[in-house]
Amino acid sequence: MRQAAKLHRIETGGRGFYEFTAALADFVRSERMSAGLLTAFCRHTSASLLIQENADPSVLADLEAVFARLAPEGAGYAHDTEGPDDMPAHIRAALTQTQLSIPVIGGALALGTWQGVYLFEHRRRPHRREIALHVIGE
Amino acid sequence: MRQAAKLHRIETGGRGFYEFTAALADFVRSERMSAGLLTAFCRHTSASLLIQENADPSVLADLEAVFARLAPEGAGYAHDTEGPDDMPAHIRAALTQTQLSIPVIGGALALGTWQGVYLFEHRRRPHRREIALHVIGE
Amino acid sequence: MRQAAKLHRIETGGRGFYEFTAALADFVRSERMSAGLLTAFCRHTSASLLIQENADPSVLADLEAVFARLAPEGAGYAHDTEGPDDMPAHIRAALTQTQLSIPVIGGALALGTWQGVYLFEHRRRPHRREIALHVIGE
Repeated sequence: MRQAAKLHRIETGGRGFYEFTAALADFVRSERMSAGLLTAFCRHTSASLLIQENADPSVLADLEAVFARLAPEGAGYAHDTEGPDDMPAHIRAALTQTQLSIPVIGGALALGTWQGVYLFEHRRRPHRREIALHVIGE
Repeated sequence: MRQAAKLHRIETGGRGFYEFTAALADFVRSERMSAGLLTAFCRHTSASLLIQENADPSVLADLEAVFARLAPEGAGYAHDTEGPDDMPAHIRAALTQTQLSIPVIGGALALGTWQGVYLFEHRRRPHRREIALHVIGE
Repeated sequence: MRQAAKLHRIETGGRGFYEFTAALADFVRSERMSAGLLTAFCRHTSASLLIQENADPSVLADLEAVFARLAPEGAGYAHDTEGPDDMPAHIRAALTQTQLSIPVIGGALALGTWQGVYLFEHRRRPHRREIALHVIGE
């Protein structure tokens, strides 16, 4: 049994979904893992992780609208020193995932046909985000 | 240290909760793992995983009502070609879990007394769902 | 490759956030793990786990208000025998995390600068909660 880790960086262009499924597959391949468990961990509290359909982009547009409704800006938050999009960012992060683990089976991530792995950027301005990747297996 | 993986299939009868705690326990037992980490990964974006109380069925009925309110049908979604229950399914999946990992301690899953592991089917029609299972330990 | 597990107990004083990041770091250190994967698993369905900002306490106050709105008391739930805060507790748990896994890199948890790990107690009365901890690595 072996393990490996690295930091994967994503430069976001502001609020939205940034798919990095290919970077996860590359990491597993470069570590020559044919069976094991991959973990992705988002090192931020105003961005998060999400697995969603990567076929029809309108799914992501609809999801964005849903989270804008669940975590509205200007709702009288106590925490507002970093701007009107900051507390909604924390709420969006709380309602989605900070971490995802995906089995590696037969040399590939066990994702379903339509599943893509996304960084969900919640802040309006561009940010440099770090995802800690870890894989254990053989 | 050893590991094992398999695909667990669940035939759903439409929207609702399908407990598969026993299948997880069987997998750990059949692999003779007395200590380790079990991971369940849902290979779909319109179904998800949830750990909830398995004592009183009314908890699940109330949860279903809550998600029907948080992700209503007919809310003017852009993604609607697969039916009115499709985009709400993606929203429900985003708000719950695609993956769960449970420690194995003393030969058993470290679940609490009242915790059951459920597939949460979000589509109205029956579906064949696949959960990738992975366990590592000894 | 080695692994270790333990139960971590937290006595809550009722609804709110209880940070236990230090207990996770202590566990990793006491097991002398310099690289690996740490998993925390909440053994309850009326409390859950959350990673959030540990710098400004107003973030947590705002989050509490959000969940009070998403999972209101007295909303005509079928499951109400354990009190008006019980079904809202299950809803809050469903919308947050039962389990979190964090890579260990260079002898430390790969948390971001402002990330704290919290038990999110959803019941109004004090409770004794158990978090199952597991680490695998070397």
